[in-house]
Order: sequence, then C-alpha cells, then structure tokens
Amino acid sequence: MNQMINGNRLNKHIEELATIGGTENGGVTRFSYSETEREANELVKQYMEAAGLTVEEDAVGNVIGSLDGDKNLPVIIIGSHIDTVPDGGKYDGALGVLTAIEVIHSLTEKGERLNHPVKVISFKDEEGSRFGFGMIGSRAAAGILTEADLEYTDDNGITIKQAMEDAGLKHTNFQQAIIDNIKLYLEVHIEQGKILESNEMPVGNVTGIAGPLWLEFTLKGLAEHAGTTPMNQRQDALVGASIIISEIEKIASRTDTTVATVGKLNVKPNGTNVIPGEVQWNVDIRDIDEAKRDVVEEQIRTFANQVADERGLELTINELQRVEPVLCDSRIQEAIKKGIQEEVDGEAISLPSGAGHDGMQFKHVAPIGMIFVRSKDGISHNPKEFTSEEDIEKAGNVLYRTLLELDRE
Amino acid sequence: MNQMINGNRLNKHIEELATIGGTENGGVTRFSYSETEREANELVKQYMEAAGLTVEEDAVGNVIGSLDGDKNLPVIIIGSHIDTVPDGGKYDGALGVLTAIEVIHSLTEKGERLNHPVKVISFKDEEGSRFGFGMIGSRAAAGILTEADLEYTDDNGITIKQAMEDAGLKHTNFQQAIIDNIKLYLEVHIEQGKILESNEMPVGNVTGIAGPLWLEFTLKGLAEHAGTTPMNQRQDALVGASIIISEIEKIASRTDTTVATVGKLNVKPNGTNVIPGEVQWNVDIRDIDEAKRDVVEEQIRTFANQVADERGLELTINELQRVEPVLCDSRIQEAIKKGIQEEVDGEAISLPSGAGHDGMQFKHVAPIGMIFVRSKDGISHNPKEFTSEEDIEKAGNVLYRTLLELDRE
Repeated sequence: MNQMINGNRLNKHIEELATIGGTENGGVTRFSYSETEREANELVKQYMEAAGLTVEEDAVGNVIGSLDGDKNLPVIIIGSHIDTVPDGGKYDGALGVLTAIEVIHSLTEKGERLNHPVKVISFKDEEGSRFGFGMIGSRAAAGILTEADLEYTDDNGITIKQAMEDAGLKHTNFQQAIIDNIKLYLEVHIEQGKILESNEMPVGNVTGIAGPLWLEFTLKGLAEHAGTTPMNQRQDALVGASIIISEIEKIASRTDTTVATVGKLNVKPNGTNVIPGEVQWNVDIRDIDEAKRDVVEEQIRTFANQVADERGLELTINELQRVEPVLCDSRIQEAIKKGIQEEVDGEAISLPSGAGHDGMQFKHVAPIGMIFVRSKDGISHNPKEFTSEEDIEKAGNVLYRTLLELDRE
Repeated sequence: MNQMINGNRLNKHIEELATIGGTENGGVTRFSYSETEREANELVKQYMEAAGLTVEEDAVGNVIGSLDGDKNLPVIIIGSHIDTVPDGGKYDGALGVLTAIEVIHSLTEKGERLNHPVKVISFKDEEGSRFGFGMIGSRAAAGILTEADLEYTDDNGITIKQAMEDAGLKHTNFQQAIIDNIKLYLEVHIEQGKILESNEMPVGNVTGIAGPLWLEFTLKGLAEHAGTTPMNQRQDALVGASIIISEIEKIASRTDTTVATVGKLNVKPNGTNVIPGEVQWNVDIRDIDEAKRDVVEEQIRTFANQVADERGLELTINELQRVEPVLCDSRIQEAIKKGIQEEVDGEAISLPSGAGHDGMQFKHVAPIGMIFVRSKDGISHNPKEFTSEEDIEKAGNVLYRTLLELDRE
C-alpha cells in the first residue's frame, strides 16, 4: 500500500488539540464562542495554513480553509466541528476536521492538484451544549439558520446573537456565511456505536443519518396512598408506563433498522408510599428510512392509547422534534466503499448513523457522504472515547482516496 | 338513637384546631416541636380541661389528659396525634384526639363514671415529616424509643434531641414517658382509603395495621447512545425495570389482601438520547398477614433476578424497612363491631389499615383496636382531605359505646 496521508502528523495534531480545554478526567470541554474555543481555532488555523489552505473565519465564526481547484467547478466541502459536550472526548468532531486538513496537507506536499476547489470547514457549535441548539455553523453555511435561532440562550441567559457580538462578529451578517454552488459534502467522524467494532472493521461507509423523532408522553392516573388502596382500585401511572415501555422495545426490535429508546422518565410525586399520579417520559425513535420510522411511531401510539384506555389513565403525546432522515448519496457511497476496499481487508461495511452530524444540514443543497471510524466499545461524549492511531490513519487514507475519486468526475 | 356525644362541639373543635397552622391552600402544616404545634397543644389542653381531664405534658412532649377510674385497674389509652404532613388535611390525627376528648366530655357531662382510668393522648410527631422518623411520642410511651433515635435530624440539621431541649424538655428523661400497666389502646382515625366509601359505610372496624416492607431495587445496565446502539445490543436498565414493575402489579393482584407499589423511581443519566444505564426504585409491600407479605416479596425477588439474568443487567435489592404487621385484638374488634352495629344500618365492615398508626407501637405491651371513619375519595395528606360532620359524630358515638363496653370487663 502506498503511503497516502501522514498518520503520525494527524495523530500528533489530535493529541495537541485535545490539550486545549482538556479536563482533569482526561476529557475535553470546548464550548462555542468561548476563550477555549478561540484558542483551539487558532491552532486549527495554523494546521490549515501549514497544509496550504487559505484561512478565513466567516460571518458566524466557522473556520474555513480553502484550496483552489484547477477548473472553475463547484466546491467540495469537507467538514466537522471542534466544539464538544461537557467533559467529552477528543475525537468527536476534532477527528473529522483534522483528518480533512491532513488529507489536503498530504496532497499539497505531494504536489497533487485537484479539479474542484475544496473548503475544509470547522463548523461552529455542532453539539448544542452551550445554547441547547446545535449545528449553528453548518445551518448557516447551508442557508437554513434563521434570525429567530439566534435568540437561543445559554445557562447565563446569553443569546447566540450576543455571544457572536462578544466574539467580534456582527450577528446581522449571519447570511453571509451561506456557501453556494456546492458539489458535495464529505465528513469523517467516529461511529459512536459498536457496529464496526463487532465486525472488526476500522472504517465504514455511512448509508444515511437517522433523523430523531422525539415524542413526550404524559400519563396521568391518581396519586393515592400505597397502603390503603386495593390493587383493583388503582390508577397507577407508572404501571401503565411500564407496560408501554416494555412494548416499545418489542415494537422496535421487530424491525431490522429502527431504534426506539426511553431515556428520560420522571415520576410524580415520586414518594415511596404514594401511587404514581403522573409519569412523563420521552421516546426517541430513529431510522434513516422515514416510512419505517412512521410505522414504529404509529404502533407505539396505538399501543399506548390502548393501555391508557384499559386502565383509566389519561395519555397525551407531544411531539418535541421530528427531524427528517438524510440519505447519503449513492455515488459518494460507492466512492467511499471503493476507498475502503482498497485500504482494508474484507468487504466494506455500510451502516446508518444513529447520531446527527453537520452534513444533515446540507440535505437540500448538496449530496453528502460520510466515513465512520471505529469507536472503542462504542463510547462517545465521554473522556473514555477512543479510536486507535492505526484506525485514524486508515480513515485518513480512505478520505484521501475518496476525494481524488470524486474530484475526477 | 340516644344522643351520646355532642357532634356540634366536636366538629367545632376540628374547625378551630385547623386554623392553627392553616395554609393558603386550605390545608394544615404543623410540625413537631414547632411554635405552631405549641399553640395547637395549648388549645388541645383547653379542650381536655373543659372535658374534665387532668392535663400534663410528659417527658417527650406528649399531651396527656387523665381521668381517674373508680377501681384500681390498668389504664385505657385513647390516642392519636395533631402533627401533620406539609400542607396536609385537618382530619388525619386531629380527628382521633378531638373525638377522644369529646367522648370523655360527654361522659363527664352526663355524670357517667368508668371503672378504668383513661388517658387521652395527643402523641408527639406521628407523621415523621420533620425528622424523617415518625411516631416519636407513641414509641416513647410504649417504651421502645431509643437514645439513638433522638439523633435523627430535620432539614436544618437539628436533632430530635436538640428540638426537645429547645422546647424546654430534658432529652435524657425520655424514658419517663413510658406508660405501664395498660389495659388496651383505642384510636379513631380517618380511613385514608376508599373501602368504607365504596361500601357506603360511615365507620368501620380495623382488623390490623399492615406493616410496610420497603425494598430498594438498583438495576444497572449500560448507558449508550440511543441512536447508535442497535436494539439487540442493548443493556437497557429501564426496559428491565419496566418488565419487573408490570409484574409486581400482577403478583400482588393475584393475592386478596397484599398491596405492592412502586411509588418512587429514578433513571440515570435521564437524557432523552441516552439508553438508561441505571434505574433505582422502591417497592412498598403491605399486608396485615406477614406470611402472605413474605410470599409476595419472594415472588417479586425471584422474578426480578430472572429478568436481570436474562438481560445481562446487574440487580441489587436493599431492604429499607421491614415493619411487623400488627393485628387488632379480637375482643376489642367485637366491641367495636357491636358499637357500629348499634349506630348504623347494615352489617359492620372490617378492613385492614394500609397506613401506619401510633397504635402499632403498643403491639408488645397491650391489645389494640381502631375505628376508621370514611374519607371522601380516599384522599389524605392533602388539603382536600374530607370527612363529613355526620360521619364524625357517628364515629364519636361508636367510640363512646366501645369504651363503655370494654370498661365493663
């Protein structure tokens, strides 16, 4: 195998960047528009410049490294982010930005030229950790960020708008961040799951990004004394919830791809000797196929209503968010699979992304593709997040191959 | 039917006492060793004196009204409490104290004399709202309060010991509150359930007090990303908990008397997009028959362990409290039923008490009996707690009849 990217340099950059915002647990905390992020951005810019990229910050604070193409063609974007969740890992986001920079660095070192112009972008605030509203930078670049979005506030009541101004950006200029004439969007990201690991594959091709559908269930019964109310006279909201939650697992398990999870649940009044009068929980349903997700949603709603009726409980279901799944472009997927095939032994694996990524925002403006890298034990958003140096190098090589392949077309 | 007690006076006293510690919601908040309680105690003492009782406060602050008997015989105790839960009702506790005073008041007004001495007692802190440790006064009188118990603290870190000293009591004297040579213990209390209401009966005979067994379950799985973990690779602690909680209802429902409730449940980390890594919940199991309660406990433990094993979850079960049920004395029950029979139409109903009461503490020193009064909608520990004036008068008459009947023996 020919050497493509410089794996040592890439892994060194990952370690260096992780020291900015490093926590005592060995994790990383970098919030958007913070001093820590600004410092990290400066380092990213240095890497970009060393790679031969022309660096700028756009109207919302995305850090962009541009490389001219030989022809007057639409731009190829390779993006990810460097912000993190609180005490997150050093790979989620940063890996994608630094791999993209490394690919360009290696290309320019070798004197390779591309037909298309390329923009390597470190997007502002993918995680949403600060304002409870994520993918700010990719929304802005794709042209779907709105003035109203800038009103989200952080825990100190500071709006996105204010944070932009404090960082020296004029918030009313946010639409200047829109990028037109995009050929395609590529991103390398850690899997945050265990599918590659269980298949012993370092990298994989992403088929699509499963949009989350979040439903909030509120089930009301009657809060009565646990000692004085006979079993057959109860309207116990928690028993009702339990029956529904057990069934949600069964419904999703009958499909081959849909996942459904109750991660958050609260009981009222939550006293040991009081029958629960109200239980509220959220269901997170995901699939890259919206029709399949709709079927699971419908089955869950039907079952839950039936349980509520049978038990004299009052059920309300409130939709918190319904994100459209995004399918990866079939031609890009082919190129990625070819790249994987050339780089590793065995058949390339294709898998969906259960988590959201910046690329989602480009669904209406450009075809997208993603390369996943194996995550140890599937752990992410945690200091224990880990991807090996060997896997990172392979992912860089796959991106390198994919970019050259797609640039030719 | 002859007039026995003065229902108007009794109901007037209930309303008057409820104004001390009255809340804006129409409820009552009276904590032990508080200024509000002291004020309420003064009013109770006035009622006692007017009833012909000799009033004292004992070493722990129980308010005791004594009436001499004609013979040198063991004492009959009629007790309850005037402390409340936060924003509780005006009947829970107070009804029993004021009904007992009224019965003595009516007897002395009529010039009726008793063979046995009687002590009407308003026990210190039945609810446990302040120190998380209840029935302080009845434990002290029954001789089972310990020095260690006085170390329980309230939300401000004040111990029972300190609260006693602040109220002018010498805490080391607590054993002086022990009452010896007790013939029997009687108490009138609201049902706090709906059994009398659904049988259209104003009063009922209590067969026993179901001791609560509290078990704390901790079920550990793996907190992973809800979007990226396939259904068949999960160790979801909440789905495991849900299956167990549904079954707990079934197990208890198969019995005729045991009740089992999961009132308190907490999920970790409790994020919408994170598979629950840990769920902790408490099970409250009650029966007046300990052997039946043991069977239900065993079935729940077996089923829960089986679910944990099948799903690769780690289960621990911790016993929080195991209170022995207390059976009411059969002779006292007969006397109460006879009193009910004379007072109301239809067959007297006997029912267990699912909630704990001061009488429980006397189980090893005297036979006990309890008279329940109908609670509207079974609601208690709530400003909406309600018992009608007619029912209260009937309960007073039943206590009057019961006392005379048992005094003769």
